[in-house]
Amino acid sequence: MRIYMDNASSAPVDKRVIEAMFPYFDTHVGNPTSLHSSGIDARRALENARESVASLIKAQSKEIIFTSGGTESNNIALRGAAQRKKKKGNHIIITAIEHMSVVNTCKDLQREGFEVTTVPVDKYGLVDQARIEAEITNRTIIISCQYANSEIGTIQPIAQIGAMTREQGIIFHVDAVAAAGKIHIDVQQDNIDLLSISSNDLYGPRGVGALYVRSGILLRPVMTGGGQERGLRSGSENIPAIVGMGKACEIIKEEIKSDSGRMESLQERLIEGVLGNMQHAYLTGHRTRRLPHIASYRFSFIEGESIILSLNDLGIEASTGSACSVKTLEPSHVLIAIGLRPEEAHGSLLLSLNRWNTEKEVDYVLESLPLVVDRLRALSPLYNGD
Amino acid sequence: MRIYMDNASSAPVDKRVIEAMFPYFDTHVGNPTSLHSSGIDARRALENARESVASLIKAQSKEIIFTSGGTESNNIALRGAAQRKKKKGNHIIITAIEHMSVVNTCKDLQREGFEVTTVPVDKYGLVDQARIEAEITNRTIIISCQYANSEIGTIQPIAQIGAMTREQGIIFHVDAVAAAGKIHIDVQQDNIDLLSISSNDLYGPRGVGALYVRSGILLRPVMTGGGQERGLRSGSENIPAIVGMGKACEIIKEEIKSDSGRMESLQERLIEGVLGNMQHAYLTGHRTRRLPHIASYRFSFIEGESIILSLNDLGIEASTGSACSVKTLEPSHVLIAIGLRPEEAHGSLLLSLNRWNTEKEVDYVLESLPLVVDRLRALSPLYNGD
Repeated sequence: MRIYMDNASSAPVDKRVIEAMFPYFDTHVGNPTSLHSSGIDARRALENARESVASLIKAQSKEIIFTSGGTESNNIALRGAAQRKKKKGNHIIITAIEHMSVVNTCKDLQREGFEVTTVPVDKYGLVDQARIEAEITNRTIIISCQYANSEIGTIQPIAQIGAMTREQGIIFHVDAVAAAGKIHIDVQQDNIDLLSISSNDLYGPRGVGALYVRSGILLRPVMTGGGQERGLRSGSENIPAIVGMGKACEIIKEEIKSDSGRMESLQERLIEGVLGNMQHAYLTGHRTRRLPHIASYRFSFIEGESIILSLNDLGIEASTGSACSVKTLEPSHVLIAIGLRPEEAHGSLLLSLNRWNTEKEVDYVLESLPLVVDRLRALSPLYNGD
Repeated sequence: MRIYMDNASSAPVDKRVIEAMFPYFDTHVGNPTSLHSSGIDARRALENARESVASLIKAQSKEIIFTSGGTESNNIALRGAAQRKKKKGNHIIITAIEHMSVVNTCKDLQREGFEVTTVPVDKYGLVDQARIEAEITNRTIIISCQYANSEIGTIQPIAQIGAMTREQGIIFHVDAVAAAGKIHIDVQQDNIDLLSISSNDLYGPRGVGALYVRSGILLRPVMTGGGQERGLRSGSENIPAIVGMGKACEIIKEEIKSDSGRMESLQERLIEGVLGNMQHAYLTGHRTRRLPHIASYRFSFIEGESIILSLNDLGIEASTGSACSVKTLEPSHVLIAIGLRPEEAHGSLLLSLNRWNTEKEVDYVLESLPLVVDRLRALSPLYNGD
């Protein structure tokens, strides 16, 4: 038996999604700009998928543009809005635990003359809306805050930040890659202007994502070419993947409640099973304001990398933080931002669940983990046996 | 029977490619940066695909980066090299019949202070290497020329331009999206520094492409994030699509000779069948220096759009120019560049073949086309019956 609990890194595609995509590989092959029947078919498939994506987040269909994934959505949102708004101001506010595609894009924008303020989070990873508000100047053009964090699961007070940014007339970008499909998102209610989602995190195919662009928000495109997606994302549309993403959104819409309920109880079992039975084991992230599928811990005296390799030997696949970045020896910036020392951050373990994980799998993980941790601690020069 | 001859817009994926991709949707789902077995599998699949792509164009594996398609490859090449080289100079040379992802990216770079010279082509769409050379100044940093044109099939003198740019120390970018898989490409022999290809034009999946970046050529990334693909293309790798593109390259490598030979004889039949039997019908592009799968014509007195719709009624799917751009009423810039008047350019028809088209299909097209053209001309106020 192999148990896959690294779904925040990459998730299986739902079989119903694969089935929906399948005919678009070699039977329905038209380009949506073509005039013939296959072109019309492709256009219809594209617009149906757009409606399904819009519906998931309570947007209008025309407010959705398809991208190649979450990273591109974040790039288009931040670069596109910053370049477009630079006459109004040059100041961007983000939180300390954003995804690297937000962090590094802001670094790049700094090189181009933008100023970026990074607002800290508390030890649970929560950002305080008042701290964001305190940083606003008359040059502030964008506030970017993730809906929830993929490494520690913490859900941010998006509705409050949204109300405040709308009142102040500042563009509000939300990276919802980790949150979408796991918790309900309503861009209207939360006053969100730009929202990034990724298909694979919805059990859709990789290589496709979407950006919600509220009506009236203008962006400068990052890539240029044939002018697809209202000029915001050139390149022939990846119809099979877009159809897959649409189908994934339809399924989520039907099943989010049962899916997330089931994952939450497994997550609860994982958290209680570890915190209740293991020494020097700590939850990272907020105890209750968290995504239903992210069980994240740190273990003292040992290295996350060794935990992953030992669990792998026992057939369990997990992560020691974000797999969204190329491997580095640096500890996760998220864990440092919640106040862990580097040696503490190195001992992290992330179990991220999917729709198909079972109680039996969770129990096997709960049996295996103490064996692994005890063995590694026995080898650790840092551990004194207490 | 439906006959699909619009493969330059979008091509079917080869069944062998679909089969190769399939397990990566829901069985092998690892992220290549993950440490566990699924991560290692994904890494291996990624690097195998990279080798297959490199091998097709005689590059080294480490010189290939995966992108989301031809448009992104062209954007990374031009924006990346221009931004990186701007201390050396600000002058870029392109030809008049480049793809919109080159044309519009250069327009965008002009807004940022770069100068762009567009070198004309002759009535066959051929660019003269000497005319390019005459435009070079000591500020010239990039020359971008497509390998062959997707609308008229003309193949450019890439080896000559390559030798000249290498001698002058200027970066040579080649958009080979239309040419790759149809004719042999050797980046070493042709002295190419940057080369764009797209998977779907190789009967691989949409939404994935590659950029060849010769060792030693430095680019500034267009998108930023986790630092994948040597920092040049952030975003979790789209492993199923990349595996598909690798497989497509392997098949092409084996079959390019027979594939292209077969398409060339069908193309010949299509060209002779039209030019030999129909009045006021002209070939666009070069008679011999052309891709093996592009039969492109113009018909006087009628509109390409009407030809497409009438052919569609007879079960034939074709194009009236590039489907890579969002529909506009403007005539194709390629046809204008080869000297056609707008009303001539509007009467164009593009039949683009794939590996599976048959002689029987070609004969049906040759029977149908005169019926369609005669009927449309009978309705045309421009046609006097000669």
